[in-house]
Amino acid sequence: MYNYLLLLCLLLITTASLAQHDTATTTPEPIPLLRQGSFTAGGTVVTSPGTFDPVADGAFNPASQSTAGQTLHGDHATVFYQVPAEARPLPLVFWHGYGQSMRTWQTTPDGREGFQTLFLRQGFPVYLLDQPRRGLSGRSTQPTTIAAATDDQLWFGIFRLGEGTEFYPDVQFSRDPAALDRFYRQITPDTGPLNIDVNVAAVSAVLDTIGPAVLVTHSHSGGQGWLAALENDNIRGIAAYEPGSNFVFPEGEVPDSIDYVGGTLRARGVPLDTFLRLTEIPIVIYYGDYIPDAPVANPGQEQWRAAVAMARRWTETVNAHGGDATLVRLPDLGLRGNTHFPMSDLNNREVAQLLRDWLSEKGLD
Amino acid sequence: MYNYLLLLCLLLITTASLAQHDTATTTPEPIPLLRQGSFTAGGTVVTSPGTFDPVADGAFNPASQSTAGQTLHGDHATVFYQVPAEARPLPLVFWHGYGQSMRTWQTTPDGREGFQTLFLRQGFPVYLLDQPRRGLSGRSTQPTTIAAATDDQLWFGIFRLGEGTEFYPDVQFSRDPAALDRFYRQITPDTGPLNIDVNVAAVSAVLDTIGPAVLVTHSHSGGQGWLAALENDNIRGIAAYEPGSNFVFPEGEVPDSIDYVGGTLRARGVPLDTFLRLTEIPIVIYYGDYIPDAPVANPGQEQWRAAVAMARRWTETVNAHGGDATLVRLPDLGLRGNTHFPMSDLNNREVAQLLRDWLSEKGLD
Repeated sequence: MYNYLLLLCLLLITTASLAQHDTATTTPEPIPLLRQGSFTAGGTVVTSPGTFDPVADGAFNPASQSTAGQTLHGDHATVFYQVPAEARPLPLVFWHGYGQSMRTWQTTPDGREGFQTLFLRQGFPVYLLDQPRRGLSGRSTQPTTIAAATDDQLWFGIFRLGEGTEFYPDVQFSRDPAALDRFYRQITPDTGPLNIDVNVAAVSAVLDTIGPAVLVTHSHSGGQGWLAALENDNIRGIAAYEPGSNFVFPEGEVPDSIDYVGGTLRARGVPLDTFLRLTEIPIVIYYGDYIPDAPVANPGQEQWRAAVAMARRWTETVNAHGGDATLVRLPDLGLRGNTHFPMSDLNNREVAQLLRDWLSEKGLD
Repeated sequence: MYNYLLLLCLLLITTASLAQHDTATTTPEPIPLLRQGSFTAGGTVVTSPGTFDPVADGAFNPASQSTAGQTLHGDHATVFYQVPAEARPLPLVFWHGYGQSMRTWQTTPDGREGFQTLFLRQGFPVYLLDQPRRGLSGRSTQPTTIAAATDDQLWFGIFRLGEGTEFYPDVQFSRDPAALDRFYRQITPDTGPLNIDVNVAAVSAVLDTIGPAVLVTHSHSGGQGWLAALENDNIRGIAAYEPGSNFVFPEGEVPDSIDYVGGTLRARGVPLDTFLRLTEIPIVIYYGDYIPDAPVANPGQEQWRAAVAMARRWTETVNAHGGDATLVRLPDLGLRGNTHFPMSDLNNREVAQLLRDWLSEKGLD
């Protein structure tokens, strides 16, 4: 009797959550959280020659610590996951961008629910990762220096909130100064040299641990996501928000690089047999607003002009080889004012709904 | 009618969770998760002189980036929180130790539920923080170098899993090599100079945001926790696991320092009026096993011998001034084999039950 009642309750609550999301009421129902936790995956172990002497070398002494015979476990990815009751079969695995962490998918800068909670409410198991040498995956096998340079306004521009210190007029970002303060504080540095091979290997190990899943990438993880999919069959679909680099093409079909104010975007070639893996899974790419079609003076917009042009060429190539890749520019669907962070913009529920619909359309829910 | 059913369901589920914890059955019920999210608190903003030119300086160019006129938001704490339905009034705020992060309180190295989930199941709002310049709070206003030194075995000793590479015979730590691998990967470096004043200020800002709460500290945050309580009246109780340093005494009552193999433990003096704040809240301190009462050769045990001796003197002083501080050595209660991480040891449910009972006894639940 008790179990029957409980089951009834869960069904009621699950249904309520969906209804809540669909109608966007302001009093969310509790989420029936079946289990949650964290784990690390991938990485390496380095060992120093010699023998560790716990008596002679066992006191903490940063100035003159002996490393003889000791190991260092590093270069892993760290994952925090949540599984709701009556979960859908395919988890969503969220991978942050450059200078970011799993914070990207949590609460928005203005304090609303991010994709972690929105999709948990929708019944999806959600996995948020910190790639190696970032955030909770801080332990690196290679040393580095962190400069603590003042560069917020650089990112204000590249993340397309505006130009200089001026917001774009209709940008989907709160004008509450506290929101911008929190947005800047989401930035977190590399704790070791940025290494795409290390990142892709660790994320592939995450997918080995999880099993079949849909990968959701952002910015710098977009290109790394293609590389991860080449390595790991557990990636059953990819939704990429504003991928910026590391587009892979079949050798012989690599397009010319694209110059933009501030740099050059180059594509990578891989053997055709390898590339074809990307034609076996549904892929959708989303870009926000303020991305010009022709060159402009502002570098903060220019690199995204190049990225969209490359992404267009890329989806054409994937589809020409029998794939299912869709390029979506949010303004084309009437969603205007999106920054480089559509998942946390003021209209992030609408952005989430597009992903939700795509998952449904592709049978990934 | 629907709302009535939902309320009934929540009550049933909450009751089930409590029963589940009390009887330690192996099929946990879903947790009714009302809301969750993340935020940053505290920190500073530094600004470079000059004027930022978004066109000239707006391209990402790490080798020669201009910082003129730009800001850096850093030195904040980051918090991930969860609030269950029918929540108890006082949240638990969990603060990690040296070289650690909020991972300390999540899944244990051998894959079981950590304090985050155990106490969420008990109806407590749980707040996990990363102190400034650690983990998800990576952005520091001061530069640093990360050495990536091999030092796992040093921590194996100091964290009292064993000596050298040998586990203590009856230690409450899994012998599965994967558990030790994951334990090492919880370590994460400082991304800026370690600064207690910066940490205490940021955690105090966290408490300003949350309101009244119980602080749960570990190791290096133990002493910082006393300092935070001196600053912030929202700390209504403290449970400290294995505090190691920064014990504060009234000026004139500061005890002699304690020498141990590998170092010296010194106490700090504060004005009596300030100190008395620590007599106004219930405090409990827990230490695990393998801490000798007399000097030994192994530095990994020695610093905890000093810490326990100082903690004993400290609780006596707090209580002599009318306070309510309790020192618990887990072996005295029959809990044997605990490392420096009782919250994630194999018997962590028993350790949690002691805290749960203490919270109840002190009216903090």
